[in-house]
Amino acid sequence: MEKSVVMNGGDGPKSYSQNSQIQAEGSDKVKELLTGSISGTLTPSPRQTFSVADLGCSVGPNTFSSMKTIIEAVKHKCGSKPLEFHVFFNDNADNDFNTLFQNLPVDKGYMAAGVPGSFHGRLFPKASIDLFHSAFALHWISKVPDEVLQRGNKGRITYACSEDYVVEAYRDQFYKDVEVFLEARSAEMLEDGLMVVLLPGRPDGSDPRDSIPMQVFECLGVAMNEMVSEGLLEEALVDSFNLPMYMPTISEVRDVVSRHKSLTLEVLQECYHPTRCSNLEEARVGSLHTRAAVEGLLCQHMGHHLIDVLFEKFTQQLFEFSKTARFRSIEKLENLFLLVKKRKLVQT
Amino acid sequence: MEKSVVMNGGDGPKSYSQNSQIQAEGSDKVKELLTGSISGTLTPSPRQTFSVADLGCSVGPNTFSSMKTIIEAVKHKCGSKPLEFHVFFNDNADNDFNTLFQNLPVDKGYMAAGVPGSFHGRLFPKASIDLFHSAFALHWISKVPDEVLQRGNKGRITYACSEDYVVEAYRDQFYKDVEVFLEARSAEMLEDGLMVVLLPGRPDGSDPRDSIPMQVFECLGVAMNEMVSEGLLEEALVDSFNLPMYMPTISEVRDVVSRHKSLTLEVLQECYHPTRCSNLEEARVGSLHTRAAVEGLLCQHMGHHLIDVLFEKFTQQLFEFSKTARFRSIEKLENLFLLVKKRKLVQT
Repeated sequence: MEKSVVMNGGDGPKSYSQNSQIQAEGSDKVKELLTGSISGTLTPSPRQTFSVADLGCSVGPNTFSSMKTIIEAVKHKCGSKPLEFHVFFNDNADNDFNTLFQNLPVDKGYMAAGVPGSFHGRLFPKASIDLFHSAFALHWISKVPDEVLQRGNKGRITYACSEDYVVEAYRDQFYKDVEVFLEARSAEMLEDGLMVVLLPGRPDGSDPRDSIPMQVFECLGVAMNEMVSEGLLEEALVDSFNLPMYMPTISEVRDVVSRHKSLTLEVLQECYHPTRCSNLEEARVGSLHTRAAVEGLLCQHMGHHLIDVLFEKFTQQLFEFSKTARFRSIEKLENLFLLVKKRKLVQT
Repeated sequence: MEKSVVMNGGDGPKSYSQNSQIQAEGSDKVKELLTGSISGTLTPSPRQTFSVADLGCSVGPNTFSSMKTIIEAVKHKCGSKPLEFHVFFNDNADNDFNTLFQNLPVDKGYMAAGVPGSFHGRLFPKASIDLFHSAFALHWISKVPDEVLQRGNKGRITYACSEDYVVEAYRDQFYKDVEVFLEARSAEMLEDGLMVVLLPGRPDGSDPRDSIPMQVFECLGVAMNEMVSEGLLEEALVDSFNLPMYMPTISEVRDVVSRHKSLTLEVLQECYHPTRCSNLEEARVGSLHTRAAVEGLLCQHMGHHLIDVLFEKFTQQLFEFSKTARFRSIEKLENLFLLVKKRKLVQT
């Protein structure tokens, strides 16, 4: 069975809801860009309902602030016209929707629904959504590439320190997945509908391996290998674990999006926010963020009993990594912001 | 804070998913009626999407079989026209949507969404739903009537053995709630849209107190009083607990629905299924069904620690009640089936 990418549920100390401030900061940095882009590209429609879907929403609270920003921007653009907002929160079926629903803002001003399922496929009826949003989700690819499973990626859990065939297999899978994603969204968008995507990227022209966030994830592989050398973990469990994740450049995104003829690329730009990993406490925060995102996948692979040990080691690895010249040369994390618009159908 | 009516989650031995066969049987009994009613009243529309919402869906599996029946009936009526089905599963925000989503049938043939919130209010945008369905949910009223809270209902938890003012307050609340429910649904239905409701009722012309299911629920009050007399439970906790539930007659339903000018009552009939409570084992099954439905409310009121004791005593009370002449005179449980249709808007 395909493993399901799912952020940690609930609202405990290891939950995604308590450990997603880095993503929140990334979203905050593009708030004005998001508002401005909607204002600049939205074509008000005569419909009385405005449907928004957040893809890969996790459990909140970040999804709630994004939806608030979007709705305010749409209201501002549409003036005094009375609109009913229908907001769909999407994530994999294993996501903790119970926590999401219990934390819905009381005065939210929209009707809410949860949509379980992978965004690497159809989720909504044709021509039903006015605006898609997705933040920090599209870098999760639909699966570990077949070639990586077949030829292996010994001792590694990402492509950050791997041979070329691994890197290329990940890039190919990302391209394929984004094509499928765009095909599905294009079918689901109304004419003139918008889609905003924010995802972690890497500097244009750089080798995929030269991504600091990917190298941070590979620190987890280093921690796993340390456990192997201490006899705590079977080597085969490291060799068979791979994170289904790829961080593209702005050119790669432009390349794949521009192939899609029913969508126009309205905005595409790089955004930045500062890295923070200069002391052990900050490394611990980074470690908790990583844990909230990948613990689910790891537990599906190696069970729960060694997870605490692994993340202790990972925190230490992360702190060591943060002291390297390579890490210190990076002052900020790069995200990619894009906005596409669905073309009007031309009557033939 | 208003207490939330929510069926037991998960799929353990005390879950609603494992203890809702009585409701399943009730739905099975009206399967042909449901199919026939849709076939007889549905006006196919030119839209490519058909939206269905199940109100008070709980966690499954009953909601999945109802949706299957409905979709097959709609497909049969609409012939070869390709339709995309969008199914909304609604229940209170405390419902276990995680279990619901994880148990969604693999080959369901529709796109699914969960909608958290009370159906005693708006849940969907205007003119967005083709067909509403609700089974064994509308007898839950929105709150314990104010008058019952103010004047009290000493030693009772329902109106089944209470004074007239209690009975009347419950009936008034049911009327008010159904009016609000119909107003909300009417706004949300598309023109020519349908709504099917199945709910437990009582024989026409009978006193509200003469409802066997209500008397079964009052057995729970008797069990609570037994715990008071044994010093296990504070008397005030019984006096302040009331089940927000009313079981109407067919005339009462006709009365409240016919007041609503934008809806036409197409089908309204009484249906029956046999009672089963002739031995202790059957009483235990009945007790588990009751527990799956009301444990959530009880725990919000009196905590978890005495629930097992309470339901042991309830099972015994239920078995005793099943031996009475009053119970034995009833051979079957009554449900009410209704189908309403949204009128076409007349252009003025």
